Amino acid sequence: MADLTRLVENEVFMAFASYATIVLSKMMFMSTATAFYRLTRKVFVNPEDCTSFGRGENAKKYLRTDDRVERVRRAHLNDLENIVPFLGIGLLYSLSGPDLSTALLHFRLFVGARIYHTIAYLTPLPQPNRALGFFIGYGVTFSMAYSLLKNKLYL
Amino acid sequence: MADLTRLVENEVFMAFASYATIVLSKMMFMSTATAFYRLTRKVFVNPEDCTSFGRGENAKKYLRTDDRVERVRRAHLNDLENIVPFLGIGLLYSLSGPDLSTALLHFRLFVGARIYHTIAYLTPLPQPNRALGFFIGYGVTFSMAYSLLKNKLYL
Amino acid sequence: MADLTRLVENEVFMAFASYATIVLSKMMFMSTATAFYRLTRKVFVNPEDCTSFGRGENAKKYLRTDDRVERVRRAHLNDLENIVPFLGIGLLYSLSGPDLSTALLHFRLFVGARIYHTIAYLTPLPQPNRALGFFIGYGVTFSMAYSLLKNKLYL
Repeated sequence: MADLTRLVENEVFMAFASYATIVLSKMMFMSTATAFYRLTRKVFVNPEDCTSFGRGENAKKYLRTDDRVERVRRAHLNDLENIVPFLGIGLLYSLSGPDLSTALLHFRLFVGARIYHTIAYLTPLPQPNRALGFFIGYGVTFSMAYSLLKNKLYL
Repeated sequence: MADLTRLVENEVFMAFASYATIVLSKMMFMSTATAFYRLTRKVFVNPEDCTSFGRGENAKKYLRTDDRVERVRRAHLNDLENIVPFLGIGLLYSLSGPDLSTALLHFRLFVGARIYHTIAYLTPLPQPNRALGFFIGYGVTFSMAYSLLKNKLYL
Repeated sequence: MADLTRLVENEVFMAFASYATIVLSKMMFMSTATAFYRLTRKVFVNPEDCTSFGRGENAKKYLRTDDRVERVRRAHLNDLENIVPFLGIGLLYSLSGPDLSTALLHFRLFVGARIYHTIAYLTPLPQPNRALGFFIGYGVTFSMAYSLLKNKLYL
C-alpha cells in the first residue's frame, strides 16, 4: 500500500482528483436538469414515461420535443465531449510530474470555464459568452496534451 | 515496477478494474445492438450504409428513423452520461484508500443498476423500473464523490 | 514521489499515455470541425449563435440542420462511444503489467483504426471502410478487456 499512500500525498494528483470530481458532479447535475424540465413541462420521449399523465391517445400528446429540454441536452452532450478529454489527458498530465502552481492554474481554469459554459448555455447569455467558456476549456486541455506529448512522448 | 506490483496487489483497485471493465463491455454491447437493429430493420442514417439494399432513389427509402433504433441509442447515450462519471470518480475513490467492503458495495450496486437500467430501457419495462436503475447508479456515484471530497479535498 | 517516478519509467504506461493523448486530441478536433461547418454553412441550432447574421425573423432561417454538420456530429458521438471504453479499459490494462510489444500493438491498432474511421466517415468513403475502422477499434478494446478479466478478475 506504500505507493497508494504516496499517490494520495502527491499534491498535483489530489488537486486533479478534487477538480475532476467537482466537474463530473456538475455534469451529473445536467441529468437532473433534464428530468426536471421533462416533468415540469410534460415533454417525454418514451411512451412508458408519461403513463401517469394519461393512457393511449391521451398520453401520446406528451411525446414531443421542447426547446428548453433540447437546450439542456445539448449542454450535457457538450460537457461529455469536453470533460472526457480533460479526464483522460488531465490524469496522465497529473502523473507526469508538472509544477503544482501550473497544474492548479489548468484545473481551476477548466472547471471555471465549464461552469461558465453551462450558465451561458442555460440562461442563455448572448454570444460570445458560451464560446468563451468553450474555448478556455478547450485551450486548457490542449495545453496539458501539448505538455504531455512534448516531454513524455513514447510511440 | 515495484509500485505497479503493489497497485495490482491492492484489492480495492483490482475490484474497481474488474467492475469498470464489465460495465464498459456492457456499454460497448449497445453499439452492436444498434447495428443489429439497423441491419434487421433496414434503418440507416448514412447513404453509404444502404447501398447493398439498392442504389439511388431505391436506397433513399432506408434513410429513416425507427423507434427501436432510437431507443437503443438513447440507452447508449444515457450509459455514456452515467458511466463516464463512475469511471472518473470511481478511479479516484479507489485510490483514496476506502474500506474494501464499502467499495465493493458501491461497485456492485452501480454495475447491477446499470444492467437493470438497460434491461428496463430495451424491454421496455413500465416505469419506475428504468428510473430506479438510473437513480441507484446516480446515488452510488454521488456517494463516492462525497466521500472523496469530504476526506481529500485539495483546492 | 518515488512511485510516480517509477510510473513514468514504466514503458507500457507511457505508451498508453501518449496514444490516449493523441486519440483524445483527434476527438477534440471534431468540435472544431463542427464549428467550422456551422459557421461556413450558416447552420445553427441556438438562436443566440446567429444574431450576427441578422435579427428576428431574418435569423430564424439559419436555425436548421445540415447533412454535413450532422455527419460530423455522428462521427464525434461514435468517437465518444468508443474512446471512453478504450480509456477506461486501456488504463487498467496498462497497469496490469502486459508485455510491451503486445500493448503497443493494441494501442497503435486502436489509434490507427479510429483515425481511419474518422476519414471514412467524413469523406465519406464507401462501406465497408467505416465499418472496418469501427470493428478494429472495437476488437482491440475487447481484447484488452478479455486479457484484464482473464488474469485479474476480482469480484
